[in-house]
Parts: sequence; C-alpha cells; structure tokens
Amino acid sequence: MAVRELINGQAGATLSSRDRGLLYGDGLFETVRVVGGVAPLWPHHMARLAEGCARLGLPAPDPRLLATELQAVASGMEAAVVRITVTRGEGARGYAPPAIQQPTRIVAAFPMPPLDARAASEGIRVRVCALRLAEQPRLAGLKHLNRLEQVLARAEWNDPAIAEGLLLDGAGRVICATMANVFAVIDGALVTPALERCGVAGVARAEVLATQVRAQVRDLRLDELLDASEVFLTSSVRGILPVQAVGDKVFAPGPVTRALQQHWRDLGFPLEQA
Amino acid sequence: MAVRELINGQAGATLSSRDRGLLYGDGLFETVRVVGGVAPLWPHHMARLAEGCARLGLPAPDPRLLATELQAVASGMEAAVVRITVTRGEGARGYAPPAIQQPTRIVAAFPMPPLDARAASEGIRVRVCALRLAEQPRLAGLKHLNRLEQVLARAEWNDPAIAEGLLLDGAGRVICATMANVFAVIDGALVTPALERCGVAGVARAEVLATQVRAQVRDLRLDELLDASEVFLTSSVRGILPVQAVGDKVFAPGPVTRALQQHWRDLGFPLEQA
Repeated sequence: MAVRELINGQAGATLSSRDRGLLYGDGLFETVRVVGGVAPLWPHHMARLAEGCARLGLPAPDPRLLATELQAVASGMEAAVVRITVTRGEGARGYAPPAIQQPTRIVAAFPMPPLDARAASEGIRVRVCALRLAEQPRLAGLKHLNRLEQVLARAEWNDPAIAEGLLLDGAGRVICATMANVFAVIDGALVTPALERCGVAGVARAEVLATQVRAQVRDLRLDELLDASEVFLTSSVRGILPVQAVGDKVFAPGPVTRALQQHWRDLGFPLEQA
Repeated sequence: MAVRELINGQAGATLSSRDRGLLYGDGLFETVRVVGGVAPLWPHHMARLAEGCARLGLPAPDPRLLATELQAVASGMEAAVVRITVTRGEGARGYAPPAIQQPTRIVAAFPMPPLDARAASEGIRVRVCALRLAEQPRLAGLKHLNRLEQVLARAEWNDPAIAEGLLLDGAGRVICATMANVFAVIDGALVTPALERCGVAGVARAEVLATQVRAQVRDLRLDELLDASEVFLTSSVRGILPVQAVGDKVFAPGPVTRALQQHWRDLGFPLEQA
C-alpha cells in the first residue's frame, strides 16, 4: 500500500504528545489541492508558509523537500488534498520556544472531496456567523494551528443546505468565511477584505489578487457586501464558489465570477468534479 | 519503570496526527501540581475543565477517572506536575465537529520544576509585553490549546532575570501574565482583572478569590497596577509569587501577599522547594 503520510520524512501517522503543535497550537499548515501530481497554487502556498514561519520565528522547511514529499504521498492519486503541517516540535515545558528548534513536518494526502457541480454553476448558500473574530495583528493572515474560532463558528449550523459561514470582526467588518476568503463586486470594482487584524490570507485569494491587479483590498462592511452585484468565495480546495445567497439576500453569479472560474480551469483545476 | 503518561487510559506517548488537538488546537488542558499524591487545587481544575468542555461543546471526561489516572502517572513522585489534555479527538477533515465525538484524554506526569526560594521571599521581576491580547469573549477564561499569543509573548525576552511578562489587551488593560494571573492591592483592596474578554482564569486565582471574598474582579489599568501597594502573581505550579518590579517600578512584598503565601503552605504546597 502506498505511503500517504510522512512525518519528518518517515512513513507514520503518529507524533509525540509533547509536540508543541498539540500543546499550544504552535505551528502552521497548508491545504494543497493536487491534480494529477500537479499543485497549481504551490508558489502561493510556499510564500505563505515562509511568511508564517518568519512571523512565528520558526525555521522554514525547504520547499524542495516539501515538494518531494508531496509527490510521494499523492503518488498515483488523480485528485488529492495534501495537508502540510509544520510545528515547533518538542521542547522543555512552558511557552518559551526552545533555544534549538527542531520543527515537526507532517505531509499527508487525503482523497479530494467530491465537488458539487451545482455549487459551481448556481452558487452556494452562506450564513452570517454569530461568532466575531478577535483582532490579533500578530497572527492575522497566517494559517496557524490556533483555529478554535473557526471550530466554534462552524459548529453554529448543521443544515447541509448552508455551505459556509461569513465571519465578521467585532466592529462588524466582513473578514472571511470559516474555510474560504470572500470577494464582492461593488460598483464594478472587485473588493476583498483587508486581513491586517484577523482572518486567513488564502492562497486562492492570493491567486485572484495576482490576476486582478485593480482589485481593492480594504475594509468591507456587511451592508456593502449585501449590496454587491456579485459575491464569491475562494478556497484552495474548492476553487471559485459563486455565492447564491447570504441569509435572505440572493445573488446571481456574474461575469467576474465566471471569468475567474475559467481562470481556475485554465490553471488545471476541474471545477465540477474531483 | 513507572508509566508516566496515559493516553485514553493506555500507556503511551504518541497520538494520531489527525487528532483535532493538533489540527486546530481543538481542546483544553490543565496543569496540576501534585504534592505527595495530593492535588490541593483539584476541585478548581475540575470546575474549569467542565466549564471549558461545556463552552467548546466537548463531552467532559469523568473527574473520578482523571483522578485515578493522575494518581497512576504521579505514583511514587513526591512532587509532580501533571498535565491533563482533552481534545475533540479525530474526525472527518474540516472544522465541523464530528457528529459522534470521541475525545482524546492525555494525562502525563512531569517532575516538579525547582522553585526559587528567593522568588518566594523577595519576589520576581516582571516586564510588560509588547504583544496585546485579542478580545474573544467566546474563549476568554478558558485554558484551551490555542496558545500562540502566549508563545509569541514569551519569546519577547530571554533575560533569565525576568521571570514573567504582563499581558495587556488592545485597550491597555492589564489581563494576566504569560503563565500566571495577576493581583494588586490598591487603596487597601485586593484587585484582579476581569477576564470576560481575554486571558486565562487560573485555578490559583480561583483559590485566592474563594478565600478573599471582598476581592474586586474588574478592569485594571496599567497605571493603577503600577501605583499598587502590593502586586503578586498566582500560578497552579508556582503558587503565590510576589512581584518585586514591573519594569523600573519596584514593589515590596506586603501583608496580603504574605498571608496568601501562608494559605498556600496551609494547603500543603511548599513555597520554597520542589
């Protein structure tokens, strides 16, 4: 049977209960969609991981090593999601990072979840979560392992007809969804929330911003979003998802959304199947 | 050799890399000081753990089972620190808690770190951290596994003469230290910060509040703290620690601090040795 998980380069699926990733959530992760052995958003993943390591004071793993390990665990899978986790490893008890850091590196492949063709064509239904994201500029933008806010927000609903939840900050600004970033077309301009205070800066968001150079990255109020002509979510796994409704407010997928879905196909991502 | 760690009741020191404790920091912990097989603050630990489980929607472990496992791992140790970790266990990928939750329970004993007799008699030096705690009422007070703020704050200094760092919130209110709670005597009244927005509600703090029924739990500005007649920290492991200095401001251990140190001795905790 193929090895689907490597921990520090060794086949395995367990780690020390003294790893700081478990003790304190002291680490970062990436969720990489792989199609036929290719990860089209790889440079964005590696850029974010490097920035996260720098900001947390972690030695960054070698991207070439990670690429080799990704290929190994996804070998033979036509469609996979590879989770890369980097923690600060083990150390003495207490919060102080150890003087000599030996990070733990986990690279694990999962089957690609099935994509809903109707979601790509007609859009998804979204709710507004009651939980408000806390503002922590030191961690904002990073895909770190402290994700209790997302867990609590995602636990707010279990209606399978609702695909995602929008997260606002304490001031009522729209920040992101529990597992995706959000874009809106407002007065003809593409807008996505600034993420200096909270939120995760997704790699699919980075790709959209790289292709839409006039897009605005700024604070976005919920009432502005609800007045937008198009709303869509971006996800490394699920791609470009038109939003059909936020609560009672209904949207139709528009031309900006459709153009970006085509861009995703051009990158090599099938939108409607695994 | 004695078993010093139990994971779901089995001797072991590893857990699945798919445990939500690692993936998302989805869990809680307690750090229990044990002296000669006795954990004097046990009821406070169990009360906080139960509250945390309720607020995170986790099934709470049976306190009698935890007590049995604590006795097992600390067996034969005159002075130990037992860390109890409870996570949401494994589940399908994604933030949504699994429909059927099978929590992971880790009970691990460590040698009690040496206590500094001078710290107990003369006090410790404390700094004010640059990192500001984010305000998240849904998680405030809990000893959950999302501790990156404490890791970053503790990484701000490595001068061994500085024992702790005070953490403020974004509005400049004093909240706690990286691993301890803070009390001040102001105009003759004992004051400790309210923890509805952020911070960890420590079990030693709970014991102080249980014995000092007139203590005030309220917002506390840094300038008020610096004008206090006494300042001390409370920790489940280190007990009552007089603060000798916050930055340049010097304090002398006073009668409230000394009375609480005596209370700690009466509970069975040696203050000056392991």
